[in-house]
Amino acid sequence: MAKVLTSQADDFPRWYQDVLAKAELADNGPVRGTMVIRPYGYALWERMQAEEDRRIKDCGAENAYFPLFIPESYLSREAEHVEGFSPELAVVTHAGGKALDEPVVVRPTSETVIGEFMAKWVQSYRDLPLLLNQWANVVRWELRPRTFLRTTEFLWQEGHTAHADQVDAATYARRILHDVYEDFLVNVLAMPVLVGRKTVGERFAGAINTMTCEGIMRDGKALQMATSHELGTNFAHAFDITYLDAQGAQQQCWTTSWGSTTRMIGGLIMAHGDDSGMIVPPRLARTQVVVLVVKDADGSGAKAAELADGLRAAGVGVTLDDKVSQSFGRRSTDWELKGVPVRIEVGPRDLAEGNVTLVRRDLGEKQPVPVGEAVARVPALLEQVQVDLLANAKAARDARIVEVTSIDEAAEAAAAAQVGRMAWELVRGDGERRLATTGVTVRCLQRADGSLPDSDDEADLVAFVAKAY
Amino acid sequence: MAKVLTSQADDFPRWYQDVLAKAELADNGPVRGTMVIRPYGYALWERMQAEEDRRIKDCGAENAYFPLFIPESYLSREAEHVEGFSPELAVVTHAGGKALDEPVVVRPTSETVIGEFMAKWVQSYRDLPLLLNQWANVVRWELRPRTFLRTTEFLWQEGHTAHADQVDAATYARRILHDVYEDFLVNVLAMPVLVGRKTVGERFAGAINTMTCEGIMRDGKALQMATSHELGTNFAHAFDITYLDAQGAQQQCWTTSWGSTTRMIGGLIMAHGDDSGMIVPPRLARTQVVVLVVKDADGSGAKAAELADGLRAAGVGVTLDDKVSQSFGRRSTDWELKGVPVRIEVGPRDLAEGNVTLVRRDLGEKQPVPVGEAVARVPALLEQVQVDLLANAKAARDARIVEVTSIDEAAEAAAAAQVGRMAWELVRGDGERRLATTGVTVRCLQRADGSLPDSDDEADLVAFVAKAY
Repeated sequence: MAKVLTSQADDFPRWYQDVLAKAELADNGPVRGTMVIRPYGYALWERMQAEEDRRIKDCGAENAYFPLFIPESYLSREAEHVEGFSPELAVVTHAGGKALDEPVVVRPTSETVIGEFMAKWVQSYRDLPLLLNQWANVVRWELRPRTFLRTTEFLWQEGHTAHADQVDAATYARRILHDVYEDFLVNVLAMPVLVGRKTVGERFAGAINTMTCEGIMRDGKALQMATSHELGTNFAHAFDITYLDAQGAQQQCWTTSWGSTTRMIGGLIMAHGDDSGMIVPPRLARTQVVVLVVKDADGSGAKAAELADGLRAAGVGVTLDDKVSQSFGRRSTDWELKGVPVRIEVGPRDLAEGNVTLVRRDLGEKQPVPVGEAVARVPALLEQVQVDLLANAKAARDARIVEVTSIDEAAEAAAAAQVGRMAWELVRGDGERRLATTGVTVRCLQRADGSLPDSDDEADLVAFVAKAY
Repeated sequence: MAKVLTSQADDFPRWYQDVLAKAELADNGPVRGTMVIRPYGYALWERMQAEEDRRIKDCGAENAYFPLFIPESYLSREAEHVEGFSPELAVVTHAGGKALDEPVVVRPTSETVIGEFMAKWVQSYRDLPLLLNQWANVVRWELRPRTFLRTTEFLWQEGHTAHADQVDAATYARRILHDVYEDFLVNVLAMPVLVGRKTVGERFAGAINTMTCEGIMRDGKALQMATSHELGTNFAHAFDITYLDAQGAQQQCWTTSWGSTTRMIGGLIMAHGDDSGMIVPPRLARTQVVVLVVKDADGSGAKAAELADGLRAAGVGVTLDDKVSQSFGRRSTDWELKGVPVRIEVGPRDLAEGNVTLVRRDLGEKQPVPVGEAVARVPALLEQVQVDLLANAKAARDARIVEVTSIDEAAEAAAAAQVGRMAWELVRGDGERRLATTGVTVRCLQRADGSLPDSDDEADLVAFVAKAY
C-alpha cells in the first residue's frame, strides 16, 4: 500500500504540508502568504472559538468589533509599537477610485484603535474595569509564510482591557492566561504547555510584560500558542485613557491585551499528529465518532445508521459514512488523516458474529464489541482517548526537555531537536544574543517550581530555550 | 422629564442616531464610513449569527474562510462584476515596506476568489453540489455612510455554491432565501418581509437573478435585508468551474451566492423601535428579562436575585440590575432604550403586598403579579411579545402599502412615506428610470398571490416601489 503521507521522521515540514493537503485543512491563497481555510479546518476553528469564547465570557469580557482600517497616525503614537509593526503593515492608499488623503493601515492588532475608544468610554472609576474582546482577521506581511503558523492574514481573538491600577491589570492578564488559554489548551486541545514569562527581547511591542503558553511540537520545536500582555500605562498615555477616581482625581488607566490565533490549528496538528495524519482530541472534535459501513450487505447499512442515531441521542458528535461506492480502505484512510478520535466499523463479517469493530485513532487498536454495547461504550472511550492524548503529548514533550548548563550545551540541545532547561542567570545579558545566532530563543522563564515569575530579576529563574516556529 | 430621544415623528434619522448612541450600539470609526460595534450591538449580531448559522448548516452548507486580499486581476474576469464593484474598492498598494508588484483589493465580496478555489476542488459530478459559507468582513467605500445600514466595512455571511445544472442552483438559491433568510427574519426578528425578485437594474453585479427579502421600516422606507443570487454560468465561465458528468463529458457549473449583513441590526432598530428606544424580539434577545431592584430595602435585593436565578433555571436569558447606587428612573430608561422585552421590577412597596411588577417593553404595560407566580408567567409572556411584535410590524407595514396605478401616483406615494403596489406592466421599460429621478426604486416583483416569479416576463406581476435605505 502506497504511503499517503511523508513520514515525520523523514521530513517533518513536508509531513505537515501533506497533512494540510490530504486532510483538506487549508490551501494557499492567491496573494502571497494568505491561506484558504477549508471546511474541515474551519470546523476545528469554530470549535476553538466556541470553547475560548465561553471561557472569555466567564472572565467577564464582552465581545465587540472595531474597524479593520486604522489611520496610519494612530500607530505612531506608541513608539515601540510602531517600531515593532511598521515592517509588517499593509497600507491602503487608494479607495473609492481616489488617492486617500491619509493612508490607512490594515490592522496588525488593535491596541491603538481600541485605545482611542477606551479613552472615550472610560470617564470614571465606575466604568472600570472595561473588558473587551473581538474575533477578527488581522494582517501582518510575512516574508516566510507557513500555513496556520505564520500567515499574512490570520484569524484570532484579541482581548483589550482597561483597569484602575497595576494590580488589577496584572491580575486580569494572569487570569486570562490561566483560565482561558492554559485551561483550553490543556483540557480541550490536550496540549501540555509551558506557561511562563517572556524575556524583554521577546515581549509584544509596547508591553511591559508578556506571558505565554508555549507548546512543544513532535519535532522538538516550540510554538507560541497564546500570549497575555500587561501594557502598563503605555497605551493609556498614548491615547489618553484616564478616569476620575472616587476622590475626584484624574488617574491614568492600566491596560492589557491578549490573543490566540488560527496558529493553534497548526499546533494541534504538530502536537498530536502521527504518520497516519492528524489526531483531534475528542473534546475538540465536532465529529467524535465516524460510523463506517464496510460494505452494504446483510443489513450493515441499516445497523450503522441505527448506531449513528443512538450515538447522536447520547450527545456524541457523529458522522455516518455510508459511501460504499468508494472503497472501504480509502475511506478508512481518509478518516485517519482527518484524525476522528474513534471509528466504528460495521460490516457483514462482524455482524454475523454479533459484533462491530471499535477503532481508536490514537492507538490504531481494533476491538470487536457486541453490537448492543457499542453506543454505551463510546463516552468512556472518548474520555479515555482525551486523557491518553494529553499524557502522551506530555511524555513526548518531557522527553524533549533536557537540563543544560551552558549556552553551548543549549545550542547543541536545540540543534538536536531538544528543549534546553537552564538557569536564567546563565543566559541573561549576552546569552540570548549568542543563542539567536544559532536560531535559538528563550521561549519563557519560570520559577523552579514551574510558576510564573513577577519579574526577570527574581533569583533562581529557569529559562526554556529552543528553536521555534 | 427631559426626553432622551428625538421622537420618530420629529426626525426619524435623528431618532435612529440617538438610539445608536444612547443604547450604546455603535460609534463611528476613525476612518470615514467605518463603525465600532459596541458590546450591546455586537451581542445582537452574535445572536443573529447563531440563528442564521444553524439554518445555513441545516441547508447543508459548510463554513470556510477565504482571504481578505484578492488580486486586482481576479475582479476583471467577470465584466459586470468589475463594473459594479470598481468604484467602491479599497486598494492595498504597499505592504511589508514595499510597493506591491500587483495591487490587491480588499474583498468587497468573494465570488471571484471562491470561484478560483471551486474550480480547483470540483472535478466530478460527485463533488457537487459544493455548498460553502463564510462569516467575514468586507469593504465597500461608501460616499454616504450610515451606521449599520451602509458602512465602508461591514460584517456578513456570504454563501457560495456550485451545482451541476440550472435547476439545482435555482432550487438551492430559493431554499436559502426562504429557509434561512425569510424564516429567520420573520420568526426570530419578527419582521414581516416582502420576498420577491429584483428587476434587472437592481440585480447583483454578475447575477442572472437576484431575490430579496425587503423590510419596511417605521418611516415607510424599504431596507433590503438579505439577498440570494443565481449567478448562472457567469462566474463558472470566468473561473473555469467545470466537472465531468456521469457520462464523462465536461460540463460547466452553475453557481449561486447569498448574503446578509450587520445591516440587519439597523433594520431591527427601525422596524420595531419607538420613542423610548429599540425593542428586541424575545427570540433574539440575549437578555430577555431584566430583573430590576427598585430600592434595596425590605429584602428587595435578595428577592430579585432569587427571581433571576429562577428565571435562569427556567432557561430564560436574564440580567439582574441591582445597581441601586444609580436612580431607578435612570436604569429603567436605559433598559427601555436597549429594548429588553420584559422587565420585572422588585421594590419594597410591591413586595409588601406580595407582588412584583411585570412590564412589557412593547406596550409599556405594567402588571402587578404575585411574587410566587412571576417566574412561571414569563415564558408565555415572552412568546406573546414575540407574536405581537410580528403582528404589529405587519400591521404597520401593511398600513404603508397602497395600491397605485401610475408612475406619478407611485412617486407621490413614496414621497408620502408609503410603499406603492402596482402592476409591473406599468413600470417596466421607462417607469423605473422615471421613478429613479425622484429617488424611488422597485424593491421587488411578486406574483399577485405573493409568490416568487421565475422571470420578469411573467404576466400580471406586481411591483413594490418605495424609497429605500
